[in-house]
Amino acid sequence: MNRITMNDTILKTKKQEMDFLRFMAKLGYDLVDLNVVETFNWGSITLDDQKMMDKRHSWTDGGVLHALRSDWTNSIVRYRKQYELEAEKIAYAGMVYKKSGTIHQMGVETFTSDISAQQEVLSDVLAFMKEHLKKNISIAVISHNKLLKKLLTKDQMEDPMIHRLVSERNRDALSHALSKDHPVIGLMEVRPEDQLEYIAGRFPELAQEIEDLKVWEDKLRKLSIENVYIDTLVMPRQSYYRGIFIQLYQKNETEPQASGGQYTSSSKAFGMGING
Amino acid sequence: MNRITMNDTILKTKKQEMDFLRFMAKLGYDLVDLNVVETFNWGSITLDDQKMMDKRHSWTDGGVLHALRSDWTNSIVRYRKQYELEAEKIAYAGMVYKKSGTIHQMGVETFTSDISAQQEVLSDVLAFMKEHLKKNISIAVISHNKLLKKLLTKDQMEDPMIHRLVSERNRDALSHALSKDHPVIGLMEVRPEDQLEYIAGRFPELAQEIEDLKVWEDKLRKLSIENVYIDTLVMPRQSYYRGIFIQLYQKNETEPQASGGQYTSSSKAFGMGING
Repeated sequence: MNRITMNDTILKTKKQEMDFLRFMAKLGYDLVDLNVVETFNWGSITLDDQKMMDKRHSWTDGGVLHALRSDWTNSIVRYRKQYELEAEKIAYAGMVYKKSGTIHQMGVETFTSDISAQQEVLSDVLAFMKEHLKKNISIAVISHNKLLKKLLTKDQMEDPMIHRLVSERNRDALSHALSKDHPVIGLMEVRPEDQLEYIAGRFPELAQEIEDLKVWEDKLRKLSIENVYIDTLVMPRQSYYRGIFIQLYQKNETEPQASGGQYTSSSKAFGMGING
Repeated sequence: MNRITMNDTILKTKKQEMDFLRFMAKLGYDLVDLNVVETFNWGSITLDDQKMMDKRHSWTDGGVLHALRSDWTNSIVRYRKQYELEAEKIAYAGMVYKKSGTIHQMGVETFTSDISAQQEVLSDVLAFMKEHLKKNISIAVISHNKLLKKLLTKDQMEDPMIHRLVSERNRDALSHALSKDHPVIGLMEVRPEDQLEYIAGRFPELAQEIEDLKVWEDKLRKLSIENVYIDTLVMPRQSYYRGIFIQLYQKNETEPQASGGQYTSSSKAFGMGING
C-alpha cells in the first residue's frame, strides 16, 4: 500500500470509531473503554472463560492469569459484574486480539429482558450502518440457541466435526455421523420456511423459542430488511448466546456485516457488534 | 465518574488521536498503526530489547516470544527494520502497555541525520500542541546522553540507586556513593548556566556534544519557548537515546507534556512523543 492509501485507511477507521461512539452517546448509551489486558483470579474463572482461553493470548505473571481482550461483550460482562455497573445501554469501539488474528469491533449491549428495548438496540445499529457506513443490510438470518441444543447431545454440540458438517449442511456425512433418521437430517430435508413447523411438530416444548423467533422475524421485517430468514441450523458464533441470535448481511456477501444476540449477564442482555 | 464525564473523556481522547493523525498526514507524515502484540525471534532479540523485557507484558507461545507494545518508537524502529520501510516521517497514536500501567501516546519520528529536518519535526509537535491541545509549552530542558556517560562508568549508569540520586540531585548521598571530588558532584556545585563550561574545561573531547546542545537550545528559543535550559544531569527516559534529548513542560508542572530525542535506527533518527 502506498502512503496515501495507508493514511486514508488509518484515518477512516479512527473516524468510524469516533462517529460510532458519538452516535451512540447521543442516543443515551454509556461509552466504555476497557484495558486490553484483562486479569483473572484463579478462584473465579468461569467455565465459559476457560473454554475461550486456548483461543486467547494469555500468560501468568506473579501467579495472576492475564489475557488480552478477545471479545468486547465478554469483557464488558466481566467488567460490569466486577464493578457492579448500573449502565443499561453500553457502546464500545476498539480492537480485539485472538491468536487467530486481530480485528476491529464496534458494538452495543443492553442489559434488560425487555424485548422492545433489545430491539431498539438492533435498530440503532442498523441506523448507524446505513447513515455512517453506507451499508445496506438486505439479509438477516435468525436462529435460537435452544433449537440445535434440543436436537443434538452436549457432546455432539461441542464436537468440532459435527459443528463443521452442520455448518456445511453436509447431509451425507451427517447421516453417517448421527443417523439417517436423526431430526437434524430431517430438518435439512424440509424447505427452510417449513423448518419451524417441523420442529414444533416434534418438540412441543420449544413453543416459546419458536414464538421468540417469529417476534424477531417480524421486527426485522419492520426494520425494512428485505430478506429475513429463520435458520434453525446455524451454529452460534459465540458460546455465550442464550436465546435468539442474528446475522446481518449485505446482498451477495458471505461474511456478516454485523452479528449479535441474547445472552445472560446478571440480568438478561442483548448485544450487536459491527465487524470492522 | 458519571456517564457524561466518562463519555466526554472517551470521545475527547478519540478526537485528539484523529486530530493529531490528520494534522500530521497533512504535513506529509506517513501514519502507522501496528499490532499491539509484537513477536520476537529468539535469534534476533537485541540487548536493548532484552533490557526492556522485564518491564513489558510478555509470554511465549509455540516457542515464539510475544510482548505487548510498550513504547511506540521502539516498535516502529523494529517494524521499520523488518519491513525495510522507506518512510522518512512517521506519525502514530495509540495505547502502550507496560507492567507499570497503560498510557496513551501520540508522536512522530523522522529518519534522517539532517538536524534542520529533525527540528522541523519538533516544531510540528509544538504547533499541534498549541493549536489543538491548547497547551503552552514555556519550559524546555535539553540534555545529551553522552555527557553523563562520560562522567559515570557503565555500571554506575545502570545502577538504579545512582540513577535515583542523580535525578534527585542528592549531593550528600552521591558524595558517598561516588566520591567527594567526582565531576558529577562538581557539576552540581556550579550554577546551571555554567555547567557546559565546566564540562568543556574537563572533557575537551565533548566539544561536538556541547555544540549540539547549543544548536538545539538556539532552535527551542526561536520556537518561542520562554525558558530553555541545558541540564547535563538529566537521566534519559529511554535507553535508546543517542544524542540530545528534550523534555517540554507547561509552567508550574513537574511532568513533561512531551519528550523526545535523537536515536539510531538504521540511520540517525529523531522522535517526539506527547503524553496523553
